[in-house]
Amino acid sequence: MDGAPPPASPAGLSAYVAVSQLLGLTLLATTGAWLGRYRGGVAWHSPLQFNVHPLCMVLGMVFLQGDALLVYRVFRHEAKHSTKVLHALLHGLALLIALVGIVAVFESHRTKGIPDMYSLHSWCGMAAFVLYLLQWLLGCGFFLFPGASFSLRGRYKPQHVFFGIALFALSIAACLLGITEMLLFNIRDSYSHFVPEGVLANTLGVLLVAFGLVVGYVLTRDDWKRPPLAEELALSMDFKTLTEGESPGG
Amino acid sequence: MDGAPPPASPAGLSAYVAVSQLLGLTLLATTGAWLGRYRGGVAWHSPLQFNVHPLCMVLGMVFLQGDALLVYRVFRHEAKHSTKVLHALLHGLALLIALVGIVAVFESHRTKGIPDMYSLHSWCGMAAFVLYLLQWLLGCGFFLFPGASFSLRGRYKPQHVFFGIALFALSIAACLLGITEMLLFNIRDSYSHFVPEGVLANTLGVLLVAFGLVVGYVLTRDDWKRPPLAEELALSMDFKTLTEGESPGG
Repeated sequence: MDGAPPPASPAGLSAYVAVSQLLGLTLLATTGAWLGRYRGGVAWHSPLQFNVHPLCMVLGMVFLQGDALLVYRVFRHEAKHSTKVLHALLHGLALLIALVGIVAVFESHRTKGIPDMYSLHSWCGMAAFVLYLLQWLLGCGFFLFPGASFSLRGRYKPQHVFFGIALFALSIAACLLGITEMLLFNIRDSYSHFVPEGVLANTLGVLLVAFGLVVGYVLTRDDWKRPPLAEELALSMDFKTLTEGESPGG
Repeated sequence: MDGAPPPASPAGLSAYVAVSQLLGLTLLATTGAWLGRYRGGVAWHSPLQFNVHPLCMVLGMVFLQGDALLVYRVFRHEAKHSTKVLHALLHGLALLIALVGIVAVFESHRTKGIPDMYSLHSWCGMAAFVLYLLQWLLGCGFFLFPGASFSLRGRYKPQHVFFGIALFALSIAACLLGITEMLLFNIRDSYSHFVPEGVLANTLGVLLVAFGLVVGYVLTRDDWKRPPLAEELALSMDFKTLTEGESPGG
């Protein structure tokens, strides 16, 4: 940015982003409240190690993944390279935190003699994590490190965007499945009597869906997409003249 | 259409639509196999009434809803009004079948003395159904019956499209939650030993996710969107000249 003030974001966009962050913080607080109030809290070397799992997955696979998706809308007038680096760093942090959450559940299962990977939750969750890692590696390879040609980036970009949103949705679905499993394992008999823990955990599920909806809405609204900067437009024009190909993206 | 042969759809689109239908039929067959082989089959006035629920929800809220979303891609060169009527009819049929599935679970609960609407599955599923019904009513009101102005239709259309895809995703998530509930209620102790019923039902979950991904991909791919017909384009031009507003849609 030079001396001129940056162009303002549309008012609607700022409001939706604010709501998304409020929802994101509320869902972290709700997860903490559930684990702290009803599940004995969180600790690594203890029978509470399992509880690290839901906390890390909500923080990494939902809140941080969602925020990483939003950076192109929030910083829509910043230089593209800085935004791209922030996007990759936030996704990288999300993956690291999710990895800690996955180690927690495998270690907890081993300690308690519970088999791994038999439930639909574990299938969906593991698929979401592995594909998310793959998507991150492909994203870094195509867009962040030099090597991929301009036209290759342009062809991969729509896939990257589609799978980014799809994996975010799958991550949320996996969390909903995890909530249902936890409730049916821990309060199976009282769940149907609307006990406070059940209502709180259901509310966490509703908040996860709401966060997904708001982030999804911000990402897919046409007039909130990142406008190409003057120099990108010029580059893209040159490119079109050269190849008659599609817009470069990345 | 006049005497000229209709323009061909892109080859990729046809292949993806074919895969989606293959997946859709496979997930119906898998649901039937699960209920028939492991859950005693399906019948209305019997203890098997509950089983009507998963069958109707997979058929209505997933397969038919997905196909109703696809009609604008499959019949992308047909007259817009016929496509619109087919879109509304398929969604209406999906809603009717889903309603039968909802009545089945409420009646089955009443017979067995099980409380209603306490689980995250029921919250997400009921939200998906009620919002889907609302979306259908709004869609009919705005696009099918005369009344809404051209510019009002144009403003509502992006919301209709976004919520259409979002509710489809929520419907699939609700099905995944239902599968997890059914397994934990019926085979809780053997589920972790990878018994065939558990693996089959998990596979149904994976098929539901795959169907959602393929339908979502077809719907959101830019170059597969329905091209405006010559007369729509002319109308839209007239409209733009009049109002400098956005494209009409609907």
